[in-house]
Amino acid sequence: MTQATIRRYNLLGLDGVPADELVALLDEAEGFVAAARGRETSDLLAGRVIANLFFEPSTRTRCSFTVAANRLGASTVDLTGLGSSLSKGETVLATALNLEAMGVDAIVVRSARSGTPHLIADAVACPVINAGDGRHEHPTQGLLDILTLRLRWGDFAGRTVVIVGDIANSRVARSNLYGLTPLGADVVLVGPPALVPASFTKITAGPGRVSVGHDLDEALPRADAVMTLRIQLERHGEDGGGSIPPDYRRRYGLTVDRAASLPPEVLVMHPGPINRGVEIDSEVADDPDRSVIMEQVTNGVAVRMAVLKRAVQC
Amino acid sequence: MTQATIRRYNLLGLDGVPADELVALLDEAEGFVAAARGRETSDLLAGRVIANLFFEPSTRTRCSFTVAANRLGASTVDLTGLGSSLSKGETVLATALNLEAMGVDAIVVRSARSGTPHLIADAVACPVINAGDGRHEHPTQGLLDILTLRLRWGDFAGRTVVIVGDIANSRVARSNLYGLTPLGADVVLVGPPALVPASFTKITAGPGRVSVGHDLDEALPRADAVMTLRIQLERHGEDGGGSIPPDYRRRYGLTVDRAASLPPEVLVMHPGPINRGVEIDSEVADDPDRSVIMEQVTNGVAVRMAVLKRAVQC
Amino acid sequence: MTQATIRRYNLLGLDGVPADELVALLDEAEGFVAAARGRETSDLLAGRVIANLFFEPSTRTRCSFTVAANRLGASTVDLTGLGSSLSKGETVLATALNLEAMGVDAIVVRSARSGTPHLIADAVACPVINAGDGRHEHPTQGLLDILTLRLRWGDFAGRTVVIVGDIANSRVARSNLYGLTPLGADVVLVGPPALVPASFTKITAGPGRVSVGHDLDEALPRADAVMTLRIQLERHGEDGGGSIPPDYRRRYGLTVDRAASLPPEVLVMHPGPINRGVEIDSEVADDPDRSVIMEQVTNGVAVRMAVLKRAVQC
Repeated sequence: MTQATIRRYNLLGLDGVPADELVALLDEAEGFVAAARGRETSDLLAGRVIANLFFEPSTRTRCSFTVAANRLGASTVDLTGLGSSLSKGETVLATALNLEAMGVDAIVVRSARSGTPHLIADAVACPVINAGDGRHEHPTQGLLDILTLRLRWGDFAGRTVVIVGDIANSRVARSNLYGLTPLGADVVLVGPPALVPASFTKITAGPGRVSVGHDLDEALPRADAVMTLRIQLERHGEDGGGSIPPDYRRRYGLTVDRAASLPPEVLVMHPGPINRGVEIDSEVADDPDRSVIMEQVTNGVAVRMAVLKRAVQC
Repeated sequence: MTQATIRRYNLLGLDGVPADELVALLDEAEGFVAAARGRETSDLLAGRVIANLFFEPSTRTRCSFTVAANRLGASTVDLTGLGSSLSKGETVLATALNLEAMGVDAIVVRSARSGTPHLIADAVACPVINAGDGRHEHPTQGLLDILTLRLRWGDFAGRTVVIVGDIANSRVARSNLYGLTPLGADVVLVGPPALVPASFTKITAGPGRVSVGHDLDEALPRADAVMTLRIQLERHGEDGGGSIPPDYRRRYGLTVDRAASLPPEVLVMHPGPINRGVEIDSEVADDPDRSVIMEQVTNGVAVRMAVLKRAVQC
Repeated sequence: MTQATIRRYNLLGLDGVPADELVALLDEAEGFVAAARGRETSDLLAGRVIANLFFEPSTRTRCSFTVAANRLGASTVDLTGLGSSLSKGETVLATALNLEAMGVDAIVVRSARSGTPHLIADAVACPVINAGDGRHEHPTQGLLDILTLRLRWGDFAGRTVVIVGDIANSRVARSNLYGLTPLGADVVLVGPPALVPASFTKITAGPGRVSVGHDLDEALPRADAVMTLRIQLERHGEDGGGSIPPDYRRRYGLTVDRAASLPPEVLVMHPGPINRGVEIDSEVADDPDRSVIMEQVTNGVAVRMAVLKRAVQC
């Protein structure tokens, strides 16, 4: 490799990102929090164009990337509503190759199929950012969760995050595991046995440890933060899903009663959208003291600004 | 209240806006007319992001706000086609709270439900601009109508505006009433009895007077301007609407014959979209001498520039 | 005509554009190739707003115009998904007149109906750019094809371009004919008799000559470049189309075997989207030595930058 090698910044997942790179990204994102609150703007990426290539609809994530790009002075071009025919592998690549040939500065990809961003990154020379792929990863969501905790805690030594819900189908859980453990946090995964495979204990980059449990009340006393997840019915197989187990809230919901048992400093998180009264009660989600759900949304813009800056300026 | 109080600019309706604030807004908008014609640009709001949260589709109003934002150097992020499930109260609020947390500088809201912008404004801390809510108000439309008349007339003393059509279901009529009367114009509302309730005479902030009538030919001799409105079949109840009365054009249409009876200086207006040959004949709508319909569209961009500037810079 | 006459730049087709104007456009576009690759940006059109009025969906062309506008610092406002009712003549005009009144700096029009951009250009005073109209023209596609060849060849003297496919229904073929022949290239149109009318030999602005044939293998030895076109089933009449003839690939496809018979310097082009294995084999479309398909996409952004600059700055 010589100096002339063209380097490219992709963010396909947090799997394999070393701790010092995570820290550098979080530091950069922290510097953008004022901008993410609308208090500052920048023209760092003026004239740059980011493509939002969304094979799976997501108003929220698309808006967050768009606001992040705009705050840096960049424009976005949206490719949404592409229809199911366009989610076929070959057409996905043709579309991405066209965007690359149009000179876009980065491609932000969202897909219901795991691996689509990797497929694209293998084919194009421009930066590719994963905005959520199937059950695989959602790295900017992981980073924003981690930034939210770091802004509250300073560091992760001795901290435990309990993630409760449909772990098996959650790209958010995976990205958090790959991001939290190298920074030193322990993670406890909780949910019905069918939704929390024992194999997930292997998803760790250390030094943080990962454990699995099926009893929320047993796990909660260890929690410094509780991240509640939605049951992803749309990912429950080809046969059209299924339904939320009738006793789910009683067994795994972060109810008002359960929240009342937690020390006041324990934080409550949710990546949204929330099924209120299922995985979390409204009073808990909206608790002004312990819920950081809206901070997560703000920090999402900051994280995406940091990622876009790195990708485009690389 | 201390100086440290955070002030916020909302524009939810013209109801209750005092005459001096209306005049200040119109003055500011008048200064943007050259920009609205594409003759000038500005970077007053560079790096700022406006969210278009449109639960009800409206290409025309969305474009007008977008052009207004762009002319000031701001970007827009569109949330459209959200689907009927997203028009439910709780989800509306969740979406608006997310936009606020993303730090957008203002939320422009359009909804088929009266009161949605108020619901949102009560929940978020960022500015909220009503781009039309159900049968309630459409304040930027009212302002652009009033600006159009002021640019022609200078002031409103002794002027009478006849508004003819489906007054009961018109947010445009309401916003005009709340805006025209404090500036001194009289308003005559005309249409079939079922569509022009007598109670509308109470919608006045004075000094202008409001009267109601059901005979267009009787009302026209008083008119300095005639504003024709579409019958809003989509707002005629849950049972699917209804139809335009068969003799509507004959009784309430601004036909070529009726227009010919008006003095040449009487202006013709329409907020669009026009049902040509129903509430207004094409020859009248396109009359280069008395129709100000295209001036209304241009002034819409100017008014929205003024409103966005106030909202974001507040 | 006095100096005060307002001049307007439209690009409705390449028909009638003189050679020196083509050369000037290509020169300007060539200067934007680095920007089209994302290597440069400009604020030449800062604060300007381009309307994408797409009555026919085309993600690719819309993205290309959007990236071109953004690279020049301009914004875009998209009018897409307007529904079939909106493609009626009167509503098309009403929408365009509204955009003009909103002061947009140019209207980019795409329509399944031939002549829509001309209809609009006759009605509005702002610049109109044809982004493809029915079977008629697609002038920026023609220009990007020609720029791609000029960047490879320098000039067109003695060059022959073979265009093979559904010529009768191709606006791309028409625009290439009107652009290539005045620059001196010969064009050979090849395809099934039903899809390559003899009357097309008349579409020439000279000095280049146009000929028609129905045997691809007979035409190929003359080719310096082969442009393959898709069969436009969606334009094959009101009765719902038809289907690709069963022996189409054997007779008219640019197969691996056919490509192997061509000298290495013969270029391969396609305007996309490609039906791989029908009009062209994948190995040929992706051949790194002779396929310039991705260069066409890049040059599309450069051409659109040049056209938008001329339109807005005129």
